[in-house]
Amino acid sequence: MTMELSAARAAQQAEKTANLDAYVAGRSFDKPTLVLDVDLVEAQYHALKAGLGRADIHYAVKANPADAIIERLVALGSHFDAASRGEIELCLSKGASPDHISFGNTIKRATDIAFAHQAGIKTFSADADEELEKIAVHAPGASVYIRLIVEVSQADWPLSRKFGCDKDTALRLLDVAKDLGLNPVGFSFHVGSQTRKADMWEPTLAALSEIWDAARDAGHELTLLNIGGGFPAFYGEAIEAPTSYAARVMALIEAHFAGAKTIMAEPGRGLVAEAGVIVSEVMLVSRKSDRDVHRWVYLDIGRFSGLAETEGEAIRYQFETPRDGDPMGPCIMAGPSCDSADVLYEKRPMQLPLTLKSGDRVLIRNTGAYTSTYSSVCFNGFPPLDVVVI
Amino acid sequence: MTMELSAARAAQQAEKTANLDAYVAGRSFDKPTLVLDVDLVEAQYHALKAGLGRADIHYAVKANPADAIIERLVALGSHFDAASRGEIELCLSKGASPDHISFGNTIKRATDIAFAHQAGIKTFSADADEELEKIAVHAPGASVYIRLIVEVSQADWPLSRKFGCDKDTALRLLDVAKDLGLNPVGFSFHVGSQTRKADMWEPTLAALSEIWDAARDAGHELTLLNIGGGFPAFYGEAIEAPTSYAARVMALIEAHFAGAKTIMAEPGRGLVAEAGVIVSEVMLVSRKSDRDVHRWVYLDIGRFSGLAETEGEAIRYQFETPRDGDPMGPCIMAGPSCDSADVLYEKRPMQLPLTLKSGDRVLIRNTGAYTSTYSSVCFNGFPPLDVVVI
Repeated sequence: MTMELSAARAAQQAEKTANLDAYVAGRSFDKPTLVLDVDLVEAQYHALKAGLGRADIHYAVKANPADAIIERLVALGSHFDAASRGEIELCLSKGASPDHISFGNTIKRATDIAFAHQAGIKTFSADADEELEKIAVHAPGASVYIRLIVEVSQADWPLSRKFGCDKDTALRLLDVAKDLGLNPVGFSFHVGSQTRKADMWEPTLAALSEIWDAARDAGHELTLLNIGGGFPAFYGEAIEAPTSYAARVMALIEAHFAGAKTIMAEPGRGLVAEAGVIVSEVMLVSRKSDRDVHRWVYLDIGRFSGLAETEGEAIRYQFETPRDGDPMGPCIMAGPSCDSADVLYEKRPMQLPLTLKSGDRVLIRNTGAYTSTYSSVCFNGFPPLDVVVI
Repeated sequence: MTMELSAARAAQQAEKTANLDAYVAGRSFDKPTLVLDVDLVEAQYHALKAGLGRADIHYAVKANPADAIIERLVALGSHFDAASRGEIELCLSKGASPDHISFGNTIKRATDIAFAHQAGIKTFSADADEELEKIAVHAPGASVYIRLIVEVSQADWPLSRKFGCDKDTALRLLDVAKDLGLNPVGFSFHVGSQTRKADMWEPTLAALSEIWDAARDAGHELTLLNIGGGFPAFYGEAIEAPTSYAARVMALIEAHFAGAKTIMAEPGRGLVAEAGVIVSEVMLVSRKSDRDVHRWVYLDIGRFSGLAETEGEAIRYQFETPRDGDPMGPCIMAGPSCDSADVLYEKRPMQLPLTLKSGDRVLIRNTGAYTSTYSSVCFNGFPPLDVVVI
């Protein structure tokens, strides 16, 4: 990013987070705390929806299941992508219609499928014979979409091969679903988390549209395409603005997938990450050797208390301290636990003020997604990440 | 391990876990559950103590803070290594004497040091100037030991550079502690988690004893050596029996460290891992492609619900299924969440029965350590790992 863009972005960011900043500035915190501004979630919902047009937003609840977020999204008419019975129960309890909830995990407990079916959920995902058999028994006649594996990705965090199946298997599973009395309506896929530019979707979509066409050629009347998530949040590297990003993705979808009457999009990170800031504190600044250039900076939050996504140093959070005007130097950053794997950034150290010391407050920006729920119950006797909604 | 040793080990294991097996066999579980036999913790405590002789066992509470474990160890006269204020409060609430608790985390919140001091805790660890300054202010006159970095390790899970400092810094910190009015009593170190054979300690001890001697030559009257953990549990590769292992480690310690009046040992995994079994269930067995040799086996427990130590596939748990007599084939194993990083074993697949299918029970052996506390609060809407003590 150029300095100019960076300054513009900083000004925009400061305006967006004015309420969060005011709340945080006036309070002291005795443990790491995620502060959420649900108005920012609403603004981002509108921005994404403006670009997504006819597509339905199914919020990926796993990104952040805070009551206030679910309630606000229900009020806005959002749909929901649930990963478990627990998430379905949450959405229903906040007033979501079962028609607006899809059970998107390809790995489901049989009794949870039965629960979802009885609750009125009608759309399920699958990527394997055994999963279709479970759905056929416990949610007879349900609509299913087959998850495709994505072999081509330009995401910051490409997904593993855990989810989805290849072309031949997917086409075969459409037949299996029909034979089992299910309604095979289409496909789903995921371009990879944090796909920063809309054009990065193009190679994935080109590859997958061949499978879509082959299924239609084989006589399957596909009507649904679930384009998953991948919508980015700002972690320091330039990303496109949400409306133009979403509009460009939709234009690519329309060009590649003919006949897809229903489009589902599942933003999680892209909807809630920028609505939250974690307030943390420096526990210790040290050097392993008096000759070391790098300092070690230990925070009161680490990989096992909310910052799990620093694994592999893929997500590089933005840190702010009260000493940011001072000269900077390279730091290895780590969490407070006695676990030697609880290191945040080591291969690519962070620049932090040379004056930083124990007791200083550190704000971790854009941490509204995939933080509070990753937090462990009591690892090393530390409480889980606290969450406050303003 | 030879087949013969393996059979002997299996018989020994079956005898040890007879109570666990009987409990588990007679019940059904609707979510992943860790079942603990505290009598096995007691037996292992006696076995380790028989070898450790004059050393004090400080149980590393972080390995498993279950009430029943702490209560039993208090009754046995164990000491405790606490990582946080939360763990100190737990030990005190179960009747541990503050004299028997050390605050072993090198990264401590200032207010937690003050709490510990007021609670009567007298021994603290440190590896940096700033930490000593905090201790001097909030626990004036306390005993401190300086943690040394271990550059030489043969452990299955060598530690990162997160903890400890080098020789020159350690010697300087002894002086700093004295200048601050603290009582610098000795050193601590950690050979690395899961050090399977006692002789693997030798190179580490040889290197560290030079620092011990240099400190004494510089006029520091060191009286305490904290040898940390590293005591292994059985995860499929041969380990030495606990008493002979501990006795050999103590013999090495006595040979290398003259004048160490007090020896602290901090077993965590080595004390509680083999006292627990996780009862889990197969959610799905599938292939990504009809041409794939490997199956994917998805369990109802994964990296974010208790099996965090599968990261990097370092710890290879032992799985048992009701179909273990059937022909076996290679499996990639994964957890139930929608997180693509929630994969347990992929680089080195596991051998599991070809007949394995959704709904089958899977026992995960020797999972009493570092499972329940790593578990996330509600990732993907799944509840944390349940714990039952028999």
